[in-house]
Amino acid sequence: MNARLILRVTGKILILEGFLLWLPLIVNLIYRESFFWSFMGPSLGLLAAGGLLQLVRVRSHNLYAKEGLFITALAWLLMSLFGCLPFMLSGEIPVFWDAFFEMVSGFTTTGATVVSDVEAMSHGMLFWRSFSHWIGGMGILVFVLAVLPQTGGGTYINLMRAESPGPQVGKLVSKVRFTARILYGIYIVMTLIQIVFLLCGRMPLFDSLITAFGTAGTGGFSCLNNSIAGYDSLYIEIVVTVFMLLFGVNFNFFYLLLIGHFGEAFRCEEVRWYFIIVLFSMVVIALNTLGLYGDFWTALRYSSFQVASIITTTGFASWDFVSWPTFSRCVLIVLMVIGACAGSTGGGIKVCRLVIAGKTMNRELKLLSRPRSVVGIKFEGKTLDPAVLRGVQTFLAVYMGILFASFLVVSLDGLSLEATFSAVVTTLGNVGPGLAEVGPMSNFSAFSPLSKLVMSFNMLAGRLELFPILLLFAPSTYIKRA
Amino acid sequence: MNARLILRVTGKILILEGFLLWLPLIVNLIYRESFFWSFMGPSLGLLAAGGLLQLVRVRSHNLYAKEGLFITALAWLLMSLFGCLPFMLSGEIPVFWDAFFEMVSGFTTTGATVVSDVEAMSHGMLFWRSFSHWIGGMGILVFVLAVLPQTGGGTYINLMRAESPGPQVGKLVSKVRFTARILYGIYIVMTLIQIVFLLCGRMPLFDSLITAFGTAGTGGFSCLNNSIAGYDSLYIEIVVTVFMLLFGVNFNFFYLLLIGHFGEAFRCEEVRWYFIIVLFSMVVIALNTLGLYGDFWTALRYSSFQVASIITTTGFASWDFVSWPTFSRCVLIVLMVIGACAGSTGGGIKVCRLVIAGKTMNRELKLLSRPRSVVGIKFEGKTLDPAVLRGVQTFLAVYMGILFASFLVVSLDGLSLEATFSAVVTTLGNVGPGLAEVGPMSNFSAFSPLSKLVMSFNMLAGRLELFPILLLFAPSTYIKRA
Repeated sequence: MNARLILRVTGKILILEGFLLWLPLIVNLIYRESFFWSFMGPSLGLLAAGGLLQLVRVRSHNLYAKEGLFITALAWLLMSLFGCLPFMLSGEIPVFWDAFFEMVSGFTTTGATVVSDVEAMSHGMLFWRSFSHWIGGMGILVFVLAVLPQTGGGTYINLMRAESPGPQVGKLVSKVRFTARILYGIYIVMTLIQIVFLLCGRMPLFDSLITAFGTAGTGGFSCLNNSIAGYDSLYIEIVVTVFMLLFGVNFNFFYLLLIGHFGEAFRCEEVRWYFIIVLFSMVVIALNTLGLYGDFWTALRYSSFQVASIITTTGFASWDFVSWPTFSRCVLIVLMVIGACAGSTGGGIKVCRLVIAGKTMNRELKLLSRPRSVVGIKFEGKTLDPAVLRGVQTFLAVYMGILFASFLVVSLDGLSLEATFSAVVTTLGNVGPGLAEVGPMSNFSAFSPLSKLVMSFNMLAGRLELFPILLLFAPSTYIKRA
Repeated sequence: MNARLILRVTGKILILEGFLLWLPLIVNLIYRESFFWSFMGPSLGLLAAGGLLQLVRVRSHNLYAKEGLFITALAWLLMSLFGCLPFMLSGEIPVFWDAFFEMVSGFTTTGATVVSDVEAMSHGMLFWRSFSHWIGGMGILVFVLAVLPQTGGGTYINLMRAESPGPQVGKLVSKVRFTARILYGIYIVMTLIQIVFLLCGRMPLFDSLITAFGTAGTGGFSCLNNSIAGYDSLYIEIVVTVFMLLFGVNFNFFYLLLIGHFGEAFRCEEVRWYFIIVLFSMVVIALNTLGLYGDFWTALRYSSFQVASIITTTGFASWDFVSWPTFSRCVLIVLMVIGACAGSTGGGIKVCRLVIAGKTMNRELKLLSRPRSVVGIKFEGKTLDPAVLRGVQTFLAVYMGILFASFLVVSLDGLSLEATFSAVVTTLGNVGPGLAEVGPMSNFSAFSPLSKLVMSFNMLAGRLELFPILLLFAPSTYIKRA
């Protein structure tokens, strides 16, 4: 591997995080809170470390797939390790595994928290916690690609490929850097629009920022203990529902709309399936919870919000769905596993992988009838490369493997089986809240340090789509073979 | 498809079932029970229907893969439909979906029951219920191949391939018919040895037969409400534990031992992994339940029995494991999903698929480092055909798909999430008991007719390894394309 280039790029990311920490620092100053050095200390450390790494002389700017994956995994791990320092230094989350869990949950846009009383936290910390959602949503490396001058050749696509969700990454335009800028452009504009909408609903500016960061990154950290339910406002619920759904859509869709290719945009198979699943789930849960709410429209109000929140893996809540009937809770678990569209800020296995897996199954059935025929699988109008197909199936197998393995470790804590299973699903899918003891109005503080570390691993693995993190921890990565 | 041949072969299977019904009939006569016509009626019907189908003139004896799968699915469905008639006619299980569930559970060697009081049933019915385990364990078509004169060419391997568990079917000897006979030979001898061992433990003859059928087929129906716990005998528990484990081993292993190829037998990768998983689970559950039992050896006694019972997908119980800590219950759920070895009478996704999936994951990681290298996957010393690999991955994806889909349907009944999830896992894996409300000392009678039908489908799909049953229900099977 090109160790020098890896160090240089990692250094740039550390510098970037050093500067990003100035934002919560400003919030800290505005609210006259006393955690100046909790932010400034780590920031200076990051800038120094990152600066030193820029002294490394790079011989080749070629970045291959493996290096892309490795940098991505390393960057996310280091960002989380440094990023949790303010929590620990300020004493607001004093213990390492709690602070690390919280930070990983932030960057991976999971939104699961170990903090029992969020409202007691300082504004600076709340801002940093939620701002990490916004950064993690579109991706820190995509950000680096968008803002930094491009030094190497065209091989930086491997960085973006490693960080962007989905089985295939299409460059929107021929240059990676412009693609990254377009993506961040759409992202920033949509976030701003949501903030304006929230302000119109008389939400305070600070809460609007926090809520918009949580929505845009499909993260779900809120500044109220009762999440969005705490505002008790139909208008805010509608705004958040709509924006959660929008941020769960493949960003290619928005790009196609932007450049006026409406026909192409609406032929997008994944987006169509996404909305079919969303609408179907909203209606069946509304029908199933009819007895709880009395009338269909109230039921639909709460089912819509929760479905949008869970399938986009945001994790906001407008109702404590732990009290819903078994069927509705099971629908939520399945939605947690499915997740949002590829190329969005959402997590899970992604709708397109599900569609591709379904088509593969269909093909296998056809092959039984005509074993010698060659049946290609078409997705979004194009025949899929067998390597992509293999990738999707391996992904699903590995996903289930990690799911069951962490399920075993976390079950050692002895919480109910429902809490254990949903905690694993929700962290691996970057959703946030689980069921039973880890429902949306509860938190993850009851778990042991071991479980918290395993779930932190799951969140990173889920956000980076398994392979970068597996590569980082696989011994074979570090052993040179003859 | 070769409809005439399908009808003929199906007819032979119906005739066979007609004769098999005479066995419980004899038991009925010995115990002077009054259900003569409950057995004789269906038997005569089967013989007549099967006889009529023998009048169909077959033009070609070629049996392709698709026909093999189709016959298998059809045969199992018809056998279950006809086989549940005695239950309904006798009034011991009067309602159709209950009787059908019970019969499917029998033939698929699941062992999940809807009968609350098993001890109140007649001996004839209990015998038929458990004998179906024994027949279903090794496979009805394998039986047909073993006993009937072979009329066609060599293409009957497709029948055996469709019914035998595992991603690959090796013929032990060059002729399918002799392979089938060897398998049934080993099966009969091992069953007889177990009966002798049980009789030595002073178990009554009838109970010994029932228990041996349940063990050999890895089924799990017992003639006591409290399963093996009802005998309260360490000796019987040890005999049953050992035989459950043996019947979960790939039968190729026994064949290799029989013909003296000890070296080859003990190099069997799947069998080694199987025993590693078994021993590991026994020890960790024993450690986890130490508080419940007081000393390690008592804990190991109960953990060994339950682990052997669940991983082999038998489903006998010597302890109501519903009361175990969360971790132990989670280990059981994972074992339910894993299942026994391919080529055994056990269910689940099979140890070898797990090993192959693990190796595939490993290869994908290696491919990240050296994208252009060709890395084959070796299993049991041979490089695997890419088609087998693809098959394993599709299998896993479809398995998880069916799991989550039925989870949703069954959750409509509103039982606890733990009961719902374990019920689906246990039926799809052909295990038998689940957790919470469907634990080993409870039964499946609380589910709605819809759930019972869905779980019957799952049991068939699980036993026949998904594709035959999917093919039977896929519309494309019946539509001729230009």
